[in-house]
Amino acid sequence: MQFDVLTIGNAIVDIISRTDDAFLAREAIDKGAMTLIDATRAVHLYDAMGPAIETSGGSAGNTVAGLVSLGGTGAYFGKVCDDQLGAIFRHDITALGVHYETAPLQDFPPTARSMILVTPDGERSMNTYLGACVELSPADIDPDVVAAAAVTYFEGYLWDPPLAKQAIVEAARIAHAHGRLVAMTLSDAFCVHRYRAEFLELIASGTVDIVFANESEMLALYETASLDEAMDRLATTVKRFAAVTRSEKGCVIVEGAMRLAVPASDVPQVVDTTGAGDLFASGFLRGFTAGLGHEDCARLGVVAAGHIIGQIGPRPQGPLKDLPEAAAILSRIGGRAAIAS
Amino acid sequence: MQFDVLTIGNAIVDIISRTDDAFLAREAIDKGAMTLIDATRAVHLYDAMGPAIETSGGSAGNTVAGLVSLGGTGAYFGKVCDDQLGAIFRHDITALGVHYETAPLQDFPPTARSMILVTPDGERSMNTYLGACVELSPADIDPDVVAAAAVTYFEGYLWDPPLAKQAIVEAARIAHAHGRLVAMTLSDAFCVHRYRAEFLELIASGTVDIVFANESEMLALYETASLDEAMDRLATTVKRFAAVTRSEKGCVIVEGAMRLAVPASDVPQVVDTTGAGDLFASGFLRGFTAGLGHEDCARLGVVAAGHIIGQIGPRPQGPLKDLPEAAAILSRIGGRAAIAS
Repeated sequence: MQFDVLTIGNAIVDIISRTDDAFLAREAIDKGAMTLIDATRAVHLYDAMGPAIETSGGSAGNTVAGLVSLGGTGAYFGKVCDDQLGAIFRHDITALGVHYETAPLQDFPPTARSMILVTPDGERSMNTYLGACVELSPADIDPDVVAAAAVTYFEGYLWDPPLAKQAIVEAARIAHAHGRLVAMTLSDAFCVHRYRAEFLELIASGTVDIVFANESEMLALYETASLDEAMDRLATTVKRFAAVTRSEKGCVIVEGAMRLAVPASDVPQVVDTTGAGDLFASGFLRGFTAGLGHEDCARLGVVAAGHIIGQIGPRPQGPLKDLPEAAAILSRIGGRAAIAS
Repeated sequence: MQFDVLTIGNAIVDIISRTDDAFLAREAIDKGAMTLIDATRAVHLYDAMGPAIETSGGSAGNTVAGLVSLGGTGAYFGKVCDDQLGAIFRHDITALGVHYETAPLQDFPPTARSMILVTPDGERSMNTYLGACVELSPADIDPDVVAAAAVTYFEGYLWDPPLAKQAIVEAARIAHAHGRLVAMTLSDAFCVHRYRAEFLELIASGTVDIVFANESEMLALYETASLDEAMDRLATTVKRFAAVTRSEKGCVIVEGAMRLAVPASDVPQVVDTTGAGDLFASGFLRGFTAGLGHEDCARLGVVAAGHIIGQIGPRPQGPLKDLPEAAAILSRIGGRAAIAS
């Protein structure tokens, strides 16, 4: 098998700046959410915000970066433009050893960027101009790569650009035809509101085998105030299982009648929550594709998530597999266990 | 007076990546130095290095960013191209409130970038493709801004691009004609080797009033192994004074027969030394232009330098003036003392 995980998502360069709550209020930014913005708003917001640092991001891009950093093998599909930000995105993901061959756009729109405003509490509020991402289409799905990946994982965010959902349906078809698994993240509560019926159908139809979601996304998906109710409803419809993240409360793995809760890891200081959910998925999928049990997978997820919120930016700055807590779990991988669909 | 300090330098976006000493050896990179590279080498090195983060840099750009972050007022001259990296550079410096109006190049070469490799000891090794910086020329010197700045400060690095030295000589002429002061940093020991005679002439001729240098640059300038000898020789030629930085040994202010040593500030962990000298100059010049004595200026310098090496990247991520050690020194500023030339 060539790849543990193929991830598909919006290929984004993050522009990260520290700010205060007053700035969010003044600019009417939904705190903690991912808000789509157009080019005009992007110019306005960039002019208004403070100095920033740039780093490759994008939810599924972060997930595959974390997976590879934990010793897994990965591939990525996502659309950039052939511009300087696109070159940065391409460099950062290929330098990790991720297979990334999606053809870039030649001219316009430019590579996507997300202006991420981090408040003193560490919470991040994302303002995303999708740029070149709107051109991701079924033509960008390389069937050989899908066939070669144990798990194909995609973002709910891909329902925002117009053609990406067709690409995902096609990728899922290929994956299943080759006995592979398909996973998705619900991405963001507002995103769930936008595509609730379609997400429910992806799950009910078995297009997706595994679901990653946080608490607010779960509540949005089932329009309920009860997480238990939402987990019960997801458990009855999801083909395999779901991993539900709960910030400082850790996570719950939901499979049939089973509810496996794993506590969060110790985080001395929350610096920037950007990438927490993405890196949880990295850790979980790294363990899962290596044949570890749900509990070890979840522990690897919370370790990776806990590490990433202690730094600025959503991608690890050194090999996650060298973290002692991660190494201890990874040491339990015995040979390479195959994953049956 | 409109500006405390105008700085002039190579306008660079930093591409910062953690690496190990083996990589430096493999790529024959001079550890701790700034090495100029051409476009071919830039492509090679970027392909070879790991994932990175991007942040605005450039020595004099960092200095004015730090100065403004300490509550001073600043302006900057430096050349970018009208491309995405240029937009990042422009945003980051203007968002701080720095006056920056240098006209960008329209097409080629692209905005300069420096691939900065940080080893586990925190030392940075810089590999700089000058790009658009080679076009900085006397036409970019806005005389009104020079006339309005108490101090005009420039990098020795500007002797690398072909026309910038003419721009500096012109800026110094205007500054002195308006009774202002001119300061320079020697930038880098290799840079001193390249332009030793010219730097000595800048000092001896009084084109420069104030010199910033670190220990290795001082030794290179006077081709001696004795720092005391180098300081004595500089003291006899420099028009006003020099500030000599000595890493963990702090700094020495050199003026006539006076040698004022100030210890370094406590740094819990050296993460990345990029910008240490630049930020020392920020602190010193912030104090100096506000009328503080040399000792307070030097203390503000070591506080700013000590802060910047505890983080990744050469520009402060929050207001330096709010650091308790900085605020204590800044509180001694009484009104606005004028600086006589």
